[in-house]
Amino acid sequence: MSGAGQGSPGEAPPRFSGIRTFAAQPHHRNAEGVDVAVVGAPFDQGTSFRPGARFGPEAIRSASALLRPYHPAQEVDVLGDLRIVDWGDVTCSPGNAERAIAQLAAGLEEIVRGGPIPLVLGGDHTIALAELRALASRHGPLGLILLDSHADTWDSYQGERYFHGTPFRRAVEEGLLDPGRSLLAGMRGPLYSPRDLEQTRELGFEVIEWQELRRLEPRDYRRRASERAGDGALFLSFDIDFIDPAFAPATGTPEPGGPTTAEALDLVRSLAGMRFAGFDVVEVSPPYDDPGKTTALVAANVAYEMLTLVALDRRG
Amino acid sequence: MSGAGQGSPGEAPPRFSGIRTFAAQPHHRNAEGVDVAVVGAPFDQGTSFRPGARFGPEAIRSASALLRPYHPAQEVDVLGDLRIVDWGDVTCSPGNAERAIAQLAAGLEEIVRGGPIPLVLGGDHTIALAELRALASRHGPLGLILLDSHADTWDSYQGERYFHGTPFRRAVEEGLLDPGRSLLAGMRGPLYSPRDLEQTRELGFEVIEWQELRRLEPRDYRRRASERAGDGALFLSFDIDFIDPAFAPATGTPEPGGPTTAEALDLVRSLAGMRFAGFDVVEVSPPYDDPGKTTALVAANVAYEMLTLVALDRRG
Amino acid sequence: MSGAGQGSPGEAPPRFSGIRTFAAQPHHRNAEGVDVAVVGAPFDQGTSFRPGARFGPEAIRSASALLRPYHPAQEVDVLGDLRIVDWGDVTCSPGNAERAIAQLAAGLEEIVRGGPIPLVLGGDHTIALAELRALASRHGPLGLILLDSHADTWDSYQGERYFHGTPFRRAVEEGLLDPGRSLLAGMRGPLYSPRDLEQTRELGFEVIEWQELRRLEPRDYRRRASERAGDGALFLSFDIDFIDPAFAPATGTPEPGGPTTAEALDLVRSLAGMRFAGFDVVEVSPPYDDPGKTTALVAANVAYEMLTLVALDRRG
Amino acid sequence: MSGAGQGSPGEAPPRFSGIRTFAAQPHHRNAEGVDVAVVGAPFDQGTSFRPGARFGPEAIRSASALLRPYHPAQEVDVLGDLRIVDWGDVTCSPGNAERAIAQLAAGLEEIVRGGPIPLVLGGDHTIALAELRALASRHGPLGLILLDSHADTWDSYQGERYFHGTPFRRAVEEGLLDPGRSLLAGMRGPLYSPRDLEQTRELGFEVIEWQELRRLEPRDYRRRASERAGDGALFLSFDIDFIDPAFAPATGTPEPGGPTTAEALDLVRSLAGMRFAGFDVVEVSPPYDDPGKTTALVAANVAYEMLTLVALDRRG
Amino acid sequence: MSGAGQGSPGEAPPRFSGIRTFAAQPHHRNAEGVDVAVVGAPFDQGTSFRPGARFGPEAIRSASALLRPYHPAQEVDVLGDLRIVDWGDVTCSPGNAERAIAQLAAGLEEIVRGGPIPLVLGGDHTIALAELRALASRHGPLGLILLDSHADTWDSYQGERYFHGTPFRRAVEEGLLDPGRSLLAGMRGPLYSPRDLEQTRELGFEVIEWQELRRLEPRDYRRRASERAGDGALFLSFDIDFIDPAFAPATGTPEPGGPTTAEALDLVRSLAGMRFAGFDVVEVSPPYDDPGKTTALVAANVAYEMLTLVALDRRG
Amino acid sequence: MSGAGQGSPGEAPPRFSGIRTFAAQPHHRNAEGVDVAVVGAPFDQGTSFRPGARFGPEAIRSASALLRPYHPAQEVDVLGDLRIVDWGDVTCSPGNAERAIAQLAAGLEEIVRGGPIPLVLGGDHTIALAELRALASRHGPLGLILLDSHADTWDSYQGERYFHGTPFRRAVEEGLLDPGRSLLAGMRGPLYSPRDLEQTRELGFEVIEWQELRRLEPRDYRRRASERAGDGALFLSFDIDFIDPAFAPATGTPEPGGPTTAEALDLVRSLAGMRFAGFDVVEVSPPYDDPGKTTALVAANVAYEMLTLVALDRRG
Repeated sequence: MSGAGQGSPGEAPPRFSGIRTFAAQPHHRNAEGVDVAVVGAPFDQGTSFRPGARFGPEAIRSASALLRPYHPAQEVDVLGDLRIVDWGDVTCSPGNAERAIAQLAAGLEEIVRGGPIPLVLGGDHTIALAELRALASRHGPLGLILLDSHADTWDSYQGERYFHGTPFRRAVEEGLLDPGRSLLAGMRGPLYSPRDLEQTRELGFEVIEWQELRRLEPRDYRRRASERAGDGALFLSFDIDFIDPAFAPATGTPEPGGPTTAEALDLVRSLAGMRFAGFDVVEVSPPYDDPGKTTALVAANVAYEMLTLVALDRRG
Repeated sequence: MSGAGQGSPGEAPPRFSGIRTFAAQPHHRNAEGVDVAVVGAPFDQGTSFRPGARFGPEAIRSASALLRPYHPAQEVDVLGDLRIVDWGDVTCSPGNAERAIAQLAAGLEEIVRGGPIPLVLGGDHTIALAELRALASRHGPLGLILLDSHADTWDSYQGERYFHGTPFRRAVEEGLLDPGRSLLAGMRGPLYSPRDLEQTRELGFEVIEWQELRRLEPRDYRRRASERAGDGALFLSFDIDFIDPAFAPATGTPEPGGPTTAEALDLVRSLAGMRFAGFDVVEVSPPYDDPGKTTALVAANVAYEMLTLVALDRRG
Repeated sequence: MSGAGQGSPGEAPPRFSGIRTFAAQPHHRNAEGVDVAVVGAPFDQGTSFRPGARFGPEAIRSASALLRPYHPAQEVDVLGDLRIVDWGDVTCSPGNAERAIAQLAAGLEEIVRGGPIPLVLGGDHTIALAELRALASRHGPLGLILLDSHADTWDSYQGERYFHGTPFRRAVEEGLLDPGRSLLAGMRGPLYSPRDLEQTRELGFEVIEWQELRRLEPRDYRRRASERAGDGALFLSFDIDFIDPAFAPATGTPEPGGPTTAEALDLVRSLAGMRFAGFDVVEVSPPYDDPGKTTALVAANVAYEMLTLVALDRRG
Repeated sequence: MSGAGQGSPGEAPPRFSGIRTFAAQPHHRNAEGVDVAVVGAPFDQGTSFRPGARFGPEAIRSASALLRPYHPAQEVDVLGDLRIVDWGDVTCSPGNAERAIAQLAAGLEEIVRGGPIPLVLGGDHTIALAELRALASRHGPLGLILLDSHADTWDSYQGERYFHGTPFRRAVEEGLLDPGRSLLAGMRGPLYSPRDLEQTRELGFEVIEWQELRRLEPRDYRRRASERAGDGALFLSFDIDFIDPAFAPATGTPEPGGPTTAEALDLVRSLAGMRFAGFDVVEVSPPYDDPGKTTALVAANVAYEMLTLVALDRRG
Repeated sequence: MSGAGQGSPGEAPPRFSGIRTFAAQPHHRNAEGVDVAVVGAPFDQGTSFRPGARFGPEAIRSASALLRPYHPAQEVDVLGDLRIVDWGDVTCSPGNAERAIAQLAAGLEEIVRGGPIPLVLGGDHTIALAELRALASRHGPLGLILLDSHADTWDSYQGERYFHGTPFRRAVEEGLLDPGRSLLAGMRGPLYSPRDLEQTRELGFEVIEWQELRRLEPRDYRRRASERAGDGALFLSFDIDFIDPAFAPATGTPEPGGPTTAEALDLVRSLAGMRFAGFDVVEVSPPYDDPGKTTALVAANVAYEMLTLVALDRRG
Repeated sequence: MSGAGQGSPGEAPPRFSGIRTFAAQPHHRNAEGVDVAVVGAPFDQGTSFRPGARFGPEAIRSASALLRPYHPAQEVDVLGDLRIVDWGDVTCSPGNAERAIAQLAAGLEEIVRGGPIPLVLGGDHTIALAELRALASRHGPLGLILLDSHADTWDSYQGERYFHGTPFRRAVEEGLLDPGRSLLAGMRGPLYSPRDLEQTRELGFEVIEWQELRRLEPRDYRRRASERAGDGALFLSFDIDFIDPAFAPATGTPEPGGPTTAEALDLVRSLAGMRFAGFDVVEVSPPYDDPGKTTALVAANVAYEMLTLVALDRRG
């Protein structure tokens, strides 16, 4: 599905055939000349409610068979213009989240060192800490553009400091994130207390709650994101629970009352022109998906929009 | 999950643990000092198409584990400020709807007499007649604020006068409802004839069909509701089939083409400042829910918005 | 469910009983005096990804039990005013798409010759070629009003010229369609190349991509459709994948990011006053439906809107 | 699928096409010359746990598309030798089980009076009372051959005397059953008390609990059945919960630890040579079926074995 | 559902109503006079494949609503003769399996110290280590009677020593188990190497692989178990994956080719007369259950058989 | 998962991680030194009822992650002793079964010519014709050992000669099969007529119907198979619908009343010592699988037993 023959449906095997790599891209671990390395992080030991995100990478790869090379709304040949590799999964030991994150970070550093931009398929959001460690080792502290229904800046959960509600606080503490260049948008749903988002802002993050975000045009969101982000390296993280559970039911901690897929994709598309050092799509929990595997398909499309951002950037 | 320790995720057991009561609230039948009694009415013998709502209370309780105490959009500590009890279920005999409604009414009267506001988890909509009997026994005739895709004011169904399409006609006949202080909104989908809604209006109800409602701002809906309702006791009934089946598929008589969850929650939130003597969320039929149990989760969030209305009212 | 007794819920058998014909309409093959013949085309050998649409007619019939006679928004007694028959299925041999389409066309011609307007329940979109052959045999070349996320005008798929991505190119080649009187709307999602839609337009079709359509009011869409269609015979084809997969997950090639059911129904309703010689609703693949069978129910409602267009037209 | 052309797969429409009648048999209500009338009884208001059996007839009809005419193990052309009609459903009002059973009995009497043997697709087991009323009106008191994990001879359930645990006690009280010619086999699972089966035996029924039945050869079961039944009219009732829930998960009150489908079919087959005046297969609750609809398919095969018993008997 | 009124179905609320405790038994934490404390351990961080067992206790409680008091095959009034409490769940922190097991052990010790026999609903099999710590603190080293398709005596998994494949090796190392009084039965399916079971036997355990067990009569299994167990305290652990996945699909590491539910229940029943200090049923992973929740129902029945063993023992 | 490090669970990545190849074996198309090439044939256009088998190879690969290297019952290190490659899928054009089979045969010939034994993951049973063409091109006419509930020797289906009920008649006609060295076992379920199996036998095949097979010991089946097969090249074909649908629900034409998985695996194991030139496992249709994907897992285990036959043969 890559290469010269992509211009028609007749020149590739049927989309339902073959080993499932992301969008039928080649699977190897040679970073040479690769623009983007799609990589799975099948970790779900940090989830506070429904587990299963360890099967997220498999499900997103499976659904990505439906993707095609050319993005008509952005007018770019995404799979044709970029050299993309499916790196496989970085893995880790079970049973101890802190150790696992260290293992994941080591695995991701191998990609980042080699040059490709990593696009990580989660896994629960805890993995963002590993991603930021790997990215910061090359780029220094990053600005975070987050679309999520939760801010994930708690300090701990029943004494555990490494779980899917804490990665961005840990990342600030470890000097991996620059909150002043970060914009967290989409937060909604019941909280433990008003402190939940106060502490996020006290860390230095800007927060646009969903009640505000839903009234913004994508271009207004874009303006705030780019003004906030400034010139340094950026990380774009997309938690699938940002989208309303009607569109993405298969996630660990769903929050009803969110955006449609169309609205969410508009927000990602609006970021065209911003340059990201890394991406992730997280919290797809396949055991809870509908028979049509819609959540995994939505996640594959979000990843495709991220690839499009890179393709547009490379085109200049 | 109630009480002083609610301010952080670290001080309660994990949300996936423990006996499932509504939002982890205590289960007992002592009405003393209780603001709201959440109570199940596992009755589905009145349904005209898909049964299963007898398992609605169990499913909503299960999904309510995801709720947290504080409502950020309304800025109120819902679970902290209110004394809430999970009363368990009121039950009834099978096989005869008329008898069953009488049994349910007797069970609910025990709550109403004791003081708490009942928030009933259905069960099919037939149970509203039982609720209104219990509420009217204390408050006299109530005004009805209904969000539903059907008006439920038919006279009978194949000769049966007690079924989920008739409770509000029965309630008018029994003097439990004041149609002149009632607003029924959201009606959509094919009807048997134009008489279906004509007779609703002839009973004295005001009806806002979905085609009109969808063009109103929540504040306009609110204005019409409060003007209509006047000063007397009010009952807020939310049929989950008001929401489009993409968001709430698990219901007895789904009607495609309705509002999103976000739109529906906005309408409930808009009612802040109105005082309700009772609430229900009905027609969740778990056997038809998706693997993520999204319908039950949406219903739990509707119930949470109802609790929020009480909390805001109590705060004054 | 048709006839004089339809004015109340009490005079027909419960909707969950009886042999499943479309909307409980009579099943026979006598075209005499029939306005619309609902007919299934259980063919799915032309699908490029998920099969299963052969069970589409059965599932749509099952869900159609929820339909009622009167359309309140359009103010017409759809099932009362029209003489509708459920014709059963036209069938075909397996294993060879070209032969099968010829068989389906022959079966549909029997209806068209007899007078009734055919409303075809698919089946994958390949069947549109059979429908157009049958319709053109009576009406000459038709204008096409298409709501779909794909234009289905490719030339071939791995050498196969008869598959669900090619029917409208084949129809042009066979002189069945007049592209100059056709409007294809709703196209979205990744493509093989920019050629995909360029060639559609080169064939003479007008295309409104979803990115443009979503910003149109239904009345603007209607205006463009009627200006385009002119005076000749018209065919209205609705691919269920036009709707976002949250609302219609059970389809062969889902494309996230599309319209809601409410938006889609508005577009169909907007076509009132245009006269169609034939209709179809295609690409419902029941094995991928949710437990509530929401996709089939949405498709039944789309078919009901099509019947409403006929009823309004007959009323004049 | 009936008639002369049945001898090869090439002469009928594909099994996935057409309006769903039982085994593609003709649908009408003319009893003349008909051997067996397959008829649905979509009643589930008598169930004590999971409802949904109202959709049993639809699901069994759908699955019966897989049946073929000839039974190789019994060497009989079942669909070819018998004149079978799908009578559609007998229906009843909701909301009152006692009234509903009377309505069902009236509907079934029409069949019995006309001559055909009724084969009833349930519906919960309450319907057996209606069947026995219809059958006894012609045949006098019947002997009952029951395969079921419950004896269904309780007196009442929370005061309700017409529910799915009581039909055979009611039938004895009404003089419809002759317990002395009846054999109830397969009872297993926890009971309310030892009285549950003591009272069954006190009514005069012979009971073979599953613990005993599983050690019998089919021929031994057959011998006991025929010795017990004597010469009078007989009724064969098969509750799908007789089979282990691995094989038939979709039922109202499943009891783990029962027979396989193969073992259950052997028992039905063993009854060849006994003459039955009526049959039913009950308690299929489709909302709980697996994606392959295995329970409905098993039920369709049980019904097919019943038809085979008639065909063998007719052949003499 | 306990107490004097249990002798008939008419004297308790319908089984589908009420807060879900195990078999409708009372929920409190007063050990006084209690025979058995049913308690959940919602831990699944030790699983090597499919997670989800954290929801096992909820699902088993829900399914246990179908249980009734009296066991006819064993002729004992299980729920009437025993004083049973649903203790709720013992919980633990996420993210670190070693810490979590310590927390669970502390929670279970509270039960064991108080007197009741704990019947633990898992959770993955890692929790057995916590159970054995609690039990051994009172009883000293226990003999283990295990029915499981895996022996769970590995040393570690990717460096993690606390996971669901290691509890019984850890327990031996900690002096909690006496391998010489233990019988592990049912092992089947592919292994990493012949060392997997060699090392089990080197630890001192007796192993009956499934290939041998399937040829034993229950009484032969019983004889070997009681000869092996001798006189000391015993622990009975039942991993739901012992049963073939057709009967119990919802488990973390299913192994096709195992026993039926009927065969498995026979083995548990055969242990009547042996006295156990503790029980568990583990590895039910509800996200993978069928719509009928058969696995959870089977697990509830296994737990019921364990209660029956206690009831028979108490009766003497 | 292959190679020296397989002896313990600690030395490979977690089984839920990585690109899904069969049993985590390497994916390439270099036949050099390879013993067995596992290859998918995602073709389902020949199915007569439920399609979906095109996704069979993906699902079986996914489930095969649960396999481990060593077979304890056969005492062989299957994955360690054999050099296995996952060849990916051979594909074909849609829309024309005859052309597709030719394409599949060409793809499979590449493997057979290169030396490895092909183990084909279907796909519907039509693909057996392609396999036999490839195998016969090297080995000459083969003997067929078939476990299936259907004999698949019809002549045509509505005029189509290439579909899943005809491959073995076609193969005889093409001189690919030697019926005199073939044994077809397991046939059950209703037929079109007695001719169905008469014609099978007239072609020269030996048939053991399920009614007979179920009474044979595996060693008796083995004796008949080896006596029948003689010395020439053999092909072992396993249709997943041979197993009862409780164990393998996800298949195109399920037939209730068949063997358990344990019984089916025993039959395959019994063939140890016979040498096969090719294998397939066909008719897994994933859209109909249960949430635990049990059918795919059973199929993966059947494939594993086939690999074991090769490993035992290679060991000599």
